[in-house]
Amino acid sequence: MTAALLNPLVTRLSPPPIPAVQAWGRSYAGGHGPLIDLSQAVPGYPPHPDMLRWLGEAASSVAYANYGPIEGEIILRDAYATHMSELYGAGIGGQNVHITSGCNQAFICAAMVVAAAGETVLVSDPFYFNHETTLSMLGIKTGFVPCNAENGFVPTVQAVEKALVPGVRALALVTPNNPTGAVYSPERLKAIFEVCRKRGVWLILDETYRDFLTDGSGEPHDLFSEVGWEDNLIQLYSFSKSFCIPGHRLGAVTAGEAVVTEIAKIMDNLQICAPRAPQIAVARALPALSDWRSANRLEIETRANALRETMIGLGGWKLEAVGAYFAFVRHPFENKTSVEVAEQLAKQAGILAIPGEYFGAGHTQFLRFAFANANATTIRQLRDRMIDFSC
Amino acid sequence: MTAALLNPLVTRLSPPPIPAVQAWGRSYAGGHGPLIDLSQAVPGYPPHPDMLRWLGEAASSVAYANYGPIEGEIILRDAYATHMSELYGAGIGGQNVHITSGCNQAFICAAMVVAAAGETVLVSDPFYFNHETTLSMLGIKTGFVPCNAENGFVPTVQAVEKALVPGVRALALVTPNNPTGAVYSPERLKAIFEVCRKRGVWLILDETYRDFLTDGSGEPHDLFSEVGWEDNLIQLYSFSKSFCIPGHRLGAVTAGEAVVTEIAKIMDNLQICAPRAPQIAVARALPALSDWRSANRLEIETRANALRETMIGLGGWKLEAVGAYFAFVRHPFENKTSVEVAEQLAKQAGILAIPGEYFGAGHTQFLRFAFANANATTIRQLRDRMIDFSC
Repeated sequence: MTAALLNPLVTRLSPPPIPAVQAWGRSYAGGHGPLIDLSQAVPGYPPHPDMLRWLGEAASSVAYANYGPIEGEIILRDAYATHMSELYGAGIGGQNVHITSGCNQAFICAAMVVAAAGETVLVSDPFYFNHETTLSMLGIKTGFVPCNAENGFVPTVQAVEKALVPGVRALALVTPNNPTGAVYSPERLKAIFEVCRKRGVWLILDETYRDFLTDGSGEPHDLFSEVGWEDNLIQLYSFSKSFCIPGHRLGAVTAGEAVVTEIAKIMDNLQICAPRAPQIAVARALPALSDWRSANRLEIETRANALRETMIGLGGWKLEAVGAYFAFVRHPFENKTSVEVAEQLAKQAGILAIPGEYFGAGHTQFLRFAFANANATTIRQLRDRMIDFSC
Repeated sequence: MTAALLNPLVTRLSPPPIPAVQAWGRSYAGGHGPLIDLSQAVPGYPPHPDMLRWLGEAASSVAYANYGPIEGEIILRDAYATHMSELYGAGIGGQNVHITSGCNQAFICAAMVVAAAGETVLVSDPFYFNHETTLSMLGIKTGFVPCNAENGFVPTVQAVEKALVPGVRALALVTPNNPTGAVYSPERLKAIFEVCRKRGVWLILDETYRDFLTDGSGEPHDLFSEVGWEDNLIQLYSFSKSFCIPGHRLGAVTAGEAVVTEIAKIMDNLQICAPRAPQIAVARALPALSDWRSANRLEIETRANALRETMIGLGGWKLEAVGAYFAFVRHPFENKTSVEVAEQLAKQAGILAIPGEYFGAGHTQFLRFAFANANATTIRQLRDRMIDFSC
């Protein structure tokens, strides 16, 4: 009898970080009041009652019990394309949309459609940890575009150019950024896209958090108006955050038709099609709950402002970046790692945050706060807990 | 401007076969009555009304709108482990279960946890096409265990031993088989498992169709009673077929705890967790709808018998294998490929079947009939259509 071996590309990955951080929270004794969970990005308000009703109606219908189209329900692809066209002032059609089970799945589809094992995909540093682990487990090499506090954690064109060595197939960026909250300007995105086009490289742009951009900030970018964008751009999105339905698992890829056709082959192998009932419900909600989503956007802006106030003059702590959903906070304990600080902050102060080094080894002086999880009143309670905290 | 390149491991894959076959059906003019769709495995009866109600209740509940555990809902892992323990007469616990979005996803999790790009996984030949395309797109090499009509399409121990060359990480088998319908005996499975254990190779056993095994045929196999099974066995299942809910995407891996822990890392990257609402509904249905599933099993046995009768003396057509859900049928047109025959059978006779060569280039004399899709009355209508058919 010989035990069979496991794939070292998988075994060498760290365990998923969110459950590990949540475990620290369970050790908090409650001395400062209820746990404030700023770890996994989860809006702290429920879905709209109509959303829940539509989910229930679709799920209990025999019409959606069977397999659906691999690329997604036509009704959702069209509704989302209309929404995208309005948002970006561009002509996007249903044929440009592939529905996925959440945005992590959209990312792995994008990664696999552009790169095989041994090839290289660039990510920003700090990066969203699932992007890095997804590439690693596929045997795709990861390159890094360094981002730092001096530049507000926005990648410079020079840093991108330097990282685009031969063999790089794609650059994956996240805006509004996870983990830093940095919002990349349309001008910077256009300049970076131009570099990608010159080098024949894909830009994979994850905009999971775009619905939390400040009202009136205009189009997130103009890349969909560029002639021939389909040859170099793959854009990703999640319905989980703005509709508060992550448990239903729904995301989308927007890309050229040729890319959508290739991603359908991947999706057929990954899971045939995304779950159907949530697709039907979201197709109704996209136009119908637009006001509700705008109200939430304002609410989350209120939360961002509450965090900014809370962090002013907070003994050594520094808000280095704050954006749509996240803040990247420098902690004052120079001789402690971010894991040590986050663990103690959870256990002693009842504040759950993600250690900066989970987003890249160099970020051990930072913590990520998913501030949008908590309302302004709760955010103001952070101040006393953090002032009293030592590590 | 330079258009970026796509991954040739993906672009060289054939388009997903089911939509292509369904397109042939749309060219059928209806001259022989309604289309008889024996292509994609879809039971031709609806889910139980209670199942639909439970799906609706869970989907409309705020309790399941948020992210769930990566490995699956505890209530479903435990309910399924209890079901597995009864079915196999073995001690399987919730910690041995990882819930996935359908069985294709269970397979890619199993493939990735055992093999990296460049390593080899064996499949039977004929194979389930998504197994082959999944391995190909990951850059995993595919080896083959030839199965033939003389052996009822069941792999022999000798064929397995011969295929297990150095570098093979796993052998993936499907029983009851897709596409042939062949049911592998407990004795044969045990002998094959022994070979795998001696060679330090994983046996990945896909039992998506086990609920359609004839009543009274006993345990599907005894592998879960082998001491140390966890070191060499990964078993896969789908809730789609027996509960008639493929649109809700739910499957499961049963494996050792160490494997479940590693698969959780993969699932976190693939889509964080399977959709939650169907998990809650299936946890209720597993014990509650046991009688309903038994009745369906009898119904599908009736359909298999109807097919056997229908095929007797049917001018050159030959039923080479028939099992839980599928039949592998030899067509009489020696100078035609299975694609040519299937296309004409769809367009002229209104019978939708999958060409044998989709399951391996050598099987061009065969068609796969997913006979369980149609009731006995419909199956008997095949006879006149097939007698009149020429190609």
